[in-house]
Amino acid sequence: MRLASALVGDRPTVALVEDGNIFPLPEGAPWPGLKGVLAAGALEEAAALARSQRAADASALSFLPLIPDPGKVLCVGVNYLPHIREMGREPPPWPTLFVRFAESLVGHGEPLRVPAASSEYDYEGELAIVIGRPAYRIRRQDVADCIAGYTCLMDGSARDWQRHTSQFTAGKNFPASGSLGPWLVTPDELQDPAQLRLETRINGEVMQSASIGEMCFDVPAIVEYCATFCQLMPGDVISTGTPGGVGFARSPPRWLRPGDRVEVEITGVGTLSNPVAA
Amino acid sequence: MRLASALVGDRPTVALVEDGNIFPLPEGAPWPGLKGVLAAGALEEAAALARSQRAADASALSFLPLIPDPGKVLCVGVNYLPHIREMGREPPPWPTLFVRFAESLVGHGEPLRVPAASSEYDYEGELAIVIGRPAYRIRRQDVADCIAGYTCLMDGSARDWQRHTSQFTAGKNFPASGSLGPWLVTPDELQDPAQLRLETRINGEVMQSASIGEMCFDVPAIVEYCATFCQLMPGDVISTGTPGGVGFARSPPRWLRPGDRVEVEITGVGTLSNPVAA
Repeated sequence: MRLASALVGDRPTVALVEDGNIFPLPEGAPWPGLKGVLAAGALEEAAALARSQRAADASALSFLPLIPDPGKVLCVGVNYLPHIREMGREPPPWPTLFVRFAESLVGHGEPLRVPAASSEYDYEGELAIVIGRPAYRIRRQDVADCIAGYTCLMDGSARDWQRHTSQFTAGKNFPASGSLGPWLVTPDELQDPAQLRLETRINGEVMQSASIGEMCFDVPAIVEYCATFCQLMPGDVISTGTPGGVGFARSPPRWLRPGDRVEVEITGVGTLSNPVAA
Repeated sequence: MRLASALVGDRPTVALVEDGNIFPLPEGAPWPGLKGVLAAGALEEAAALARSQRAADASALSFLPLIPDPGKVLCVGVNYLPHIREMGREPPPWPTLFVRFAESLVGHGEPLRVPAASSEYDYEGELAIVIGRPAYRIRRQDVADCIAGYTCLMDGSARDWQRHTSQFTAGKNFPASGSLGPWLVTPDELQDPAQLRLETRINGEVMQSASIGEMCFDVPAIVEYCATFCQLMPGDVISTGTPGGVGFARSPPRWLRPGDRVEVEITGVGTLSNPVAA
């Protein structure tokens, strides 16, 4: 099952993506957004209701960030060995976690904004986990129970601001500097995430290409760790880190510019595509 | 004006604190919580409505975290020179910012919980800023316009988890490991924050005592910096960092234990007092 958050005209809603069509929930649907669908454990019910509707006219629809109102977005900072090496770091003993705010993320197709205050705006393609059930102090073998599904995250980063201090917060939160989507894919539609491949392209050119299986901390390890120090809730997002090939580590560096298009594609999940605007 | 977030019986509401009494807003008040009052620019209106009510029976009332549902809680990590020295760090060129989630904070009087997974649970008393109006890319001289007021924050920290990696996130977000309150004090009731004094006590013993004026980055500098990389919104909280004297830097270290009581007092603001529970 694939569910998206979308604007139909100016009405925010949840939409089922099936057979190349998009079926938005009708007005008056009982859940306030995708986070509400997850909190109610109503994925199947929402999909059935959407399937009974007419497909949307794609020209009248735009994508919102997959979870427009997440309680929290945790991001693993360094998780692929090649990226750890290109950033000049050592493999960490624990997942390195920073936070993005909701306002830093746009939906599929919407413009990313180059931060006016930064001259080093970089891309990072990532696999993101969406939490479906509350989870606190769970065992690794129970992690799958709390995962609603997966999506793509473009963890856009102002490298100069990321390096202002020891903490990444400032470099990771410029408004509309990242994106989340295009949709949620439930685990039953996917192989083991470790078997998936991730590719990030700028204007069609492949900049990052890796197996998700190259992660230092795999999906169960990341979720188990996060659920030890905080209560995970439906709609929370945990992004799993980016592989090698970011703009910062290239010679010369490849910063994002207005007019670029960034695509993050994960096999079986989909392609998150965003133009870059000033 | 002093406004709190409170539970009256099991009804969450906003309450005016005046002349030693607490006046909760009645059922059906038009704002969903203190964040809603701030977003509506309705501080005066809410206070007038509360003042027309009967004072609450204190035994039927408990305090919620001052903003129960903040969009974001940004915290300055190292901002007082003596604390920077005791943590073995250098004064940073920019404010060091990490993030706390709402679930990590309790209200005045409510028990703080020692994280089961940590053996190094520490206190940090701090002055916190509450944002009243949206602010993005503002000048230092305009910062005062977006500040609704001030409160106290106990930035409880699992030091072992804070040091797992370069990022502080894991050590700062255990459920109920920090507190926020007791109430919002509007700037017209306070001196310049730099003139205030902060004291943190454990079981009555003074552990931290400093002038807010000892901060490396003062309130306008912190808010101006944050508003450059993210959109500040009503109800957002920015905590300004802790002075020297934390438990970690003592010999032997003084970790918080069940049965302790932590008090953070700031002159003119109030005293945030919490017992520590297992």
